[in-house]
Amino acid sequence: MQRTLSAALAGQESQRTVIEGWIHRRRRLAGVTFLIVRDRSGLAQVVVTDPATREQLDRLGEETVVRVEGRVTANLRAPLGVELTEPMITPLSSPAEPTVLELWRPALEASLPIQLDQGAVAWRHPRQRACWQVAAASLRGFRLSLEAQDFTEIQTPKLVAGSTESGANVFEVDYFGRPAYLAQSPQFYKQMMVGVFERVYETGPVFRAEPHDTVRHLAEYVSLDAELGFITDHRDVLAVLRNVIAGMLDELRRSASAAMALAGVRLPEVPEQFPIVHFREALALVGADPEETDLAPEHERRLGVWARERFGSDFLAVEGYPAAKRPFYTQPEPGDARWTNSFDLLFRGLELVTGGQRLHELGDYERALAARGESMAPYASYLQAFRHGMPPHGGFAIGLARWTARLLEVDNIRRTTLFPRDLHRLAP
Amino acid sequence: MQRTLSAALAGQESQRTVIEGWIHRRRRLAGVTFLIVRDRSGLAQVVVTDPATREQLDRLGEETVVRVEGRVTANLRAPLGVELTEPMITPLSSPAEPTVLELWRPALEASLPIQLDQGAVAWRHPRQRACWQVAAASLRGFRLSLEAQDFTEIQTPKLVAGSTESGANVFEVDYFGRPAYLAQSPQFYKQMMVGVFERVYETGPVFRAEPHDTVRHLAEYVSLDAELGFITDHRDVLAVLRNVIAGMLDELRRSASAAMALAGVRLPEVPEQFPIVHFREALALVGADPEETDLAPEHERRLGVWARERFGSDFLAVEGYPAAKRPFYTQPEPGDARWTNSFDLLFRGLELVTGGQRLHELGDYERALAARGESMAPYASYLQAFRHGMPPHGGFAIGLARWTARLLEVDNIRRTTLFPRDLHRLAP
Repeated sequence: MQRTLSAALAGQESQRTVIEGWIHRRRRLAGVTFLIVRDRSGLAQVVVTDPATREQLDRLGEETVVRVEGRVTANLRAPLGVELTEPMITPLSSPAEPTVLELWRPALEASLPIQLDQGAVAWRHPRQRACWQVAAASLRGFRLSLEAQDFTEIQTPKLVAGSTESGANVFEVDYFGRPAYLAQSPQFYKQMMVGVFERVYETGPVFRAEPHDTVRHLAEYVSLDAELGFITDHRDVLAVLRNVIAGMLDELRRSASAAMALAGVRLPEVPEQFPIVHFREALALVGADPEETDLAPEHERRLGVWARERFGSDFLAVEGYPAAKRPFYTQPEPGDARWTNSFDLLFRGLELVTGGQRLHELGDYERALAARGESMAPYASYLQAFRHGMPPHGGFAIGLARWTARLLEVDNIRRTTLFPRDLHRLAP
Repeated sequence: MQRTLSAALAGQESQRTVIEGWIHRRRRLAGVTFLIVRDRSGLAQVVVTDPATREQLDRLGEETVVRVEGRVTANLRAPLGVELTEPMITPLSSPAEPTVLELWRPALEASLPIQLDQGAVAWRHPRQRACWQVAAASLRGFRLSLEAQDFTEIQTPKLVAGSTESGANVFEVDYFGRPAYLAQSPQFYKQMMVGVFERVYETGPVFRAEPHDTVRHLAEYVSLDAELGFITDHRDVLAVLRNVIAGMLDELRRSASAAMALAGVRLPEVPEQFPIVHFREALALVGADPEETDLAPEHERRLGVWARERFGSDFLAVEGYPAAKRPFYTQPEPGDARWTNSFDLLFRGLELVTGGQRLHELGDYERALAARGESMAPYASYLQAFRHGMPPHGGFAIGLARWTARLLEVDNIRRTTLFPRDLHRLAP
């Protein structure tokens, strides 16, 4: 008999059918055992009255995988409006060992380190599962939106000869006896590929040897990168970013409403244009020293509150970040090179996206590297693109785990990463 | 004035419009210069008769980025049926340095090492660009097909504490002062996530410290992985794989027909079911020693010819590979543990996909590791999934570059990888 998913049981009343899944919970009462079976679509209730079957169930612990054949019976008090009765149960795995995680509870109560140590099992919790479904739908929305805007997907190497952003915080790899590094971002490659496809995107891992132990840094994370040519300045990049964020939210609404309800997601509205404030004004707004070169987390939080009050927006773009704090490939602001054509997008008072316009003239790269006391040689294969004609271009990068954490309003991006990597954690 | 893509010029006859792109080629005749501009949509012809503009063009080398405003004029001999006349040309980059690659020729004639050294520029060639568009559409088709089959996308760590397949051929990373390794595949993680979502897929880089210098091995490549639970055996996996391959080809037909025409792709037909031959019979068919434990490339080639003649199929699944040659997590063949419930899929006589059914019982893992003289400890966080109930499951992995190389019928997967990595090459 063909398997039915639990979500499809309603509508099959009075038929005999088969479900397969994990024993989520057994509740043994005086004359009946209620069995909850979990499959990828949800939870189904099975009513067990036959004494032999109840005894069989006593020996199968939670998380044992079973096949249950039974009759679909209407019961308005059952979660799906139906339940299975007169069941025959066949184990598909040996009895599972008990887990301390108590997956049947409405929320995982174990501490975060215990959840992370037992990631393979903790993600089975329906609410955890919903968190990742939000991430997966966001990924899909990112790609769909960019494809609709005529972007081409690229896949670029993670093993590189030099560092992208600076010499610090890179992981060194023994590459056939010589040193290589793990790419901190696909920055150079996505720019080079603007020379080929004009508009490109990449979704994939990036690596940061972050010596910090914080709730918002990981040693490896999924970066959603885009880059586009033939722009006027960074505001054209912001316009594409706005469409991408709107597209991610559209896809969440279309395909992940059940997961969002379970995970408690409150979706933001996306304004037609993101409100924009200059870095200089942002400092003034939060009463910071005008000589500051970066926004502190507390500043970002207060700017988030301000944007909500002033514009009714969960999003705020801060443009014009000081050149001193931006990478060498950043385009200066016309007329005042202290500032740059770059931005951060704050989402609910937290930095979510970094982006901007890049240099596109070989001569500008030569000067920018010289000004930082760097030689051209390590960048030779990157600069090749500029030697042979590149249009004005820019782009941005979104950290997937940060995005999901903000949507779920959880405090730690380890909660939105399947198997996080940090200073202390390399397993599971 | 808003930019028009070259592919959209036809239909705008007699209007003045703007195109932007790279100077692909200039041809200076006695009284006229023909300028070919390349943008992401194709090539447009511009007719320059004004002496000052012709002189301006003399100073702008091929690959300089330009904006051209002109009148759209019908000309049946022009590539698009239209051309731009009375142009005003504005450079968007400094004059580009000449490249030895001669991108305007119908095909790149430089040797492969030169093309690879100059990847940032070589990929600009329209035919090269088409090759990657075939890869990008294949990626899209892979995901679309699996989403339609209710698979969930996952993103799993590339920095791992141990090796997946064996101790050999892993890259070691300095991970905050202790050793870590680059994942050879998402194998363990995708299996663990079957315990969560039942059906999962991942697209991302994998790393092999291959000491071989061959046309079909790279140190880093994009792997298209899928894994599914609640199967009977590996043939259920093959059925999903068949749908995935069909979905990739559907997406190529839908969205990449121009690229395929340019790149010279001959699409295969996908039979309703892949023909299947047992490894034992495969050896007999090619007259190999029945004690052989693997198929040599020449064997695969001959099996490909046989499948075409016998079944009219470009695909042939070889099942039952000897246990000695398969990883420890492979499910043995019921009744004869010399063989396994695993397969390779040959495409046009070359191995394209490896897959099979995995062990799902903790006890089987204990025995399999003990038989290979391995301890359980390094696998503790992986085995956790099996300790807590896992369904029968299996999966497969497709190498993106191999797939594209077979479609394009090119000899070397370096030709279908944006920036390949091998024993000798770490740049660009």
